[in-house]
Amino acid sequence: MMRKFVSDRTGRNIILVRSFHHLKQLLQSPLSASQSRFLSSTVLDSTSASSNPSAAPPVNLDTINPKVLKCEYAVRGEIVTLAQTLQQELQSKPGSHPFDEILYCNIGNPQSLGQEPITFFREVLSLCDHPAILDRSETQGLFSADAVERAWQILDQIPGRATGAYSHSQGIKGLRDTIAAGIEARDDFPADPNDIFLTDGASPAVHMMMQLLIRSEKDGILCPIPQYPLYSASIALHGGTLVPYYLNEATGWGLEVSELEKQLDNAKSKGVIVRALVVINPGNPTGQVLAEENQRDIVEFCKKEGLVLLADEVYQENVYVPEKTFHSFKKISRSMGYGEEDLSLVSFQSVSKGYYGECGKRGGYMEVTGFNADVREQIYKMASVNLCSNISGQILASLVMSPPKVGDESYELFSAEKEGILASLARRAKALEDAFSNLEGVSCNKAEGAMYLFPRIYLPQKAIKAAEAVDTAPDAFYCRRLLNATGIVVVPGSGFGQVPGTWHFRCTILPQEDKIPAIVSRLTDFHQGFMDEFRD
Amino acid sequence: MMRKFVSDRTGRNIILVRSFHHLKQLLQSPLSASQSRFLSSTVLDSTSASSNPSAAPPVNLDTINPKVLKCEYAVRGEIVTLAQTLQQELQSKPGSHPFDEILYCNIGNPQSLGQEPITFFREVLSLCDHPAILDRSETQGLFSADAVERAWQILDQIPGRATGAYSHSQGIKGLRDTIAAGIEARDDFPADPNDIFLTDGASPAVHMMMQLLIRSEKDGILCPIPQYPLYSASIALHGGTLVPYYLNEATGWGLEVSELEKQLDNAKSKGVIVRALVVINPGNPTGQVLAEENQRDIVEFCKKEGLVLLADEVYQENVYVPEKTFHSFKKISRSMGYGEEDLSLVSFQSVSKGYYGECGKRGGYMEVTGFNADVREQIYKMASVNLCSNISGQILASLVMSPPKVGDESYELFSAEKEGILASLARRAKALEDAFSNLEGVSCNKAEGAMYLFPRIYLPQKAIKAAEAVDTAPDAFYCRRLLNATGIVVVPGSGFGQVPGTWHFRCTILPQEDKIPAIVSRLTDFHQGFMDEFRD
Repeated sequence: MMRKFVSDRTGRNIILVRSFHHLKQLLQSPLSASQSRFLSSTVLDSTSASSNPSAAPPVNLDTINPKVLKCEYAVRGEIVTLAQTLQQELQSKPGSHPFDEILYCNIGNPQSLGQEPITFFREVLSLCDHPAILDRSETQGLFSADAVERAWQILDQIPGRATGAYSHSQGIKGLRDTIAAGIEARDDFPADPNDIFLTDGASPAVHMMMQLLIRSEKDGILCPIPQYPLYSASIALHGGTLVPYYLNEATGWGLEVSELEKQLDNAKSKGVIVRALVVINPGNPTGQVLAEENQRDIVEFCKKEGLVLLADEVYQENVYVPEKTFHSFKKISRSMGYGEEDLSLVSFQSVSKGYYGECGKRGGYMEVTGFNADVREQIYKMASVNLCSNISGQILASLVMSPPKVGDESYELFSAEKEGILASLARRAKALEDAFSNLEGVSCNKAEGAMYLFPRIYLPQKAIKAAEAVDTAPDAFYCRRLLNATGIVVVPGSGFGQVPGTWHFRCTILPQEDKIPAIVSRLTDFHQGFMDEFRD
Repeated sequence: MMRKFVSDRTGRNIILVRSFHHLKQLLQSPLSASQSRFLSSTVLDSTSASSNPSAAPPVNLDTINPKVLKCEYAVRGEIVTLAQTLQQELQSKPGSHPFDEILYCNIGNPQSLGQEPITFFREVLSLCDHPAILDRSETQGLFSADAVERAWQILDQIPGRATGAYSHSQGIKGLRDTIAAGIEARDDFPADPNDIFLTDGASPAVHMMMQLLIRSEKDGILCPIPQYPLYSASIALHGGTLVPYYLNEATGWGLEVSELEKQLDNAKSKGVIVRALVVINPGNPTGQVLAEENQRDIVEFCKKEGLVLLADEVYQENVYVPEKTFHSFKKISRSMGYGEEDLSLVSFQSVSKGYYGECGKRGGYMEVTGFNADVREQIYKMASVNLCSNISGQILASLVMSPPKVGDESYELFSAEKEGILASLARRAKALEDAFSNLEGVSCNKAEGAMYLFPRIYLPQKAIKAAEAVDTAPDAFYCRRLLNATGIVVVPGSGFGQVPGTWHFRCTILPQEDKIPAIVSRLTDFHQGFMDEFRD
């Protein structure tokens, strides 16, 4: 069985036909023969002018890039637009809805829900933004001594101490040294600063790899289903094919190599060339943490099949259960004795997640290993076209990979902030997991890691019929009802993909702890009412 | 005559053939018929498995996206790689070259060459990064009162004062209000905050528009030649065709509508559908500032031909001659009575240029006008896939569009810093322009604006032959010689495009003022020696 996922819109067939018509024209076009080098551009004779007076068409949905139309991103989709409308209504007409505020549980955006930033990180960023105050006496009273020292260290790593200059396309070398050292400390295997590409968050890094690997719709990328929709969106934008593999909900969203093999074979039989495998660990939206043994099997599979392993490891600090530990895929593959020659592996990390949750800073990196020098040069070129990622984000990426250590002035505060946030996240995850599990017709995964729960709702037939009657997916129908009744914003499972006929939603574990009881109670009341209305 | 520019590499034909073979396969593929909606993904039967056991090919130059190979970016190309090597050699073996330092005149990166940031801007950024200090008494001594006040204002515009949260996909609404007000003050015509999309610099904004407009190689974008290679790179990456129009060097790099018309007709006659016109004003690499009358003609041309006008206005603050003034294309079109219905216009602005030169902050915006709501929604979706641009960059974009005003505590210092930088840039531009003009066989444009000079070198035949003998473009040959002899890094004209048979290089006007005499003297000595060696 092969499930072909292409997120779609009305009019898709028309667009495809038009697009293929273009391709056909292209094959017959004289232009393809006339390519010439930029350096010595040839001058074509064009005495046949205006035989084909094709004017520029107006810009509308029929004339824009159909790949853009295909792309979907539910995390900021219709449900969020509705939430924003409700929020405006609440502001202009207080009391116009049966709730006082919108609770955004749609997106992993901790600081938008009141999580405080880590003090040490912000001290360093603040000092690097305005180095003129580093030598001032008042600064001693305002900032911790190790933040001042770290700011000096970082400034000394930046040519001319110029935090306002474009950096090396891969990011400031000294910061990459720090990050590589942090990876070594984490994995106990060597890391090379030349393998690090600093980026404006993980999303542009993922785009860069998709752009590199995808040549046409014949190139496939194996992605988990459910998946974080960045992947489906990015594959659609770059014109490739998403080859789905299903996580097994029955085993806590287990990733089974037999499923990978089956889907790979299916894709091959359709003529799709699978280039890469995406693994999200800890899982988004599914919250599972992979077992070491499982990771070894995945590495073996990628090596055997010659697939690039794209390891989304942005939740590496978000593990909430004592029986699970995060292991990077680089550590796993190195511990199996595999090196540069054996596996093309890209690990994505971000400053937006973890206990830091600095989404607005747009910092992150990818560690690129197992590619030959020629291809590395192409990745470097792609990074160069956008010049560099933002320097504050670069600095922050170095900080999260090298936080204060025992004995540093900031250590105690840092440690208390970090442990406080992670312990609270664990408690919130458990409270919401229990609440979901107690609802009629709902089963919920264990929140081992990441920032999400992805409960399954067994919707009554009557609800499914009601949704169909308004041309809405049943889970979207449920989520909209929930929002309208409670102000709670969650994302329908259909935005992430799910086994056909099953229905879920993704809910973050991020609302402030003192709001959790109210959320649970509002959600429980709503659900009870919904079931009362639609129970078969 | 039509000049077809596709920056290329060895092996291009092979790649094209392979790519077209893929397209052909695609046309015959059963996949195209099997597209299904993400929501209700169909399950394909695949009993015919492994009839076509296409394994994943290894990742090498033959198997990556050929569009990536095609893309070139000379500003960080070979010459810069050579410069970095020389710099390392200088560090490890002082005295190993006939110069002490590398002078990077290849890129508009002012702070890397010692330009200091504007104090007020950095104060505000620093305070927004660490709001905890805003209430502290020491802060009064370290920061100006209006910076503190502005930081409070900005924080109040951010939901929950969370500078570490993802913002609205277009950027924080309050900051967009400020930017729109700044545009109104600049243009004296209304601006709508909902038209503003904040981005990580202008480059991602340009990519977004290219991605939106380009469907296939049949879609063309009119670009000036010479051009800033972001445009050729972005068009190549998105698979479109660069339709060149030549700036007229004889009239100070004038932009002539007759040339636009000619190139548009030529493109049409080849079956290319031209979607948009790129104008860079003030010019990069050519430094000219367009006359108002000329801008009106361009607007009229775009309106008549139904072209999207992509206006690169990132150098709007960089005008150095009293007889020229910057006018935004939006102001020009509105002053002609044209509104939303008449012209699709995108204006790009960046915090990297101007007197601020904050390249490392990656801030900028595009103002999108004259698109229908459907298309706007698609642009919004594209912005959403990357969540948002970095918040520091967003804040800085609001600051450059709303700097301190007369009466503010910071005004005097701000004004002195701003005028100091701009006056110095004007002096440097003039000094370098004069120096270039005095060289044998060199003519140089007037530096009216932007940050560059683009002198033409009339190379002796003997030099051209010597370059050909080492398989190098003559201007690249000259630039490499210059670098090896003096440590001065400039970019060959071939990286920007130029009339075939003419040779140029781009040199920034950014080296510190006290270094200009030494640069002029080294450059003059080198050039004399070069001409002595190769004079016919």
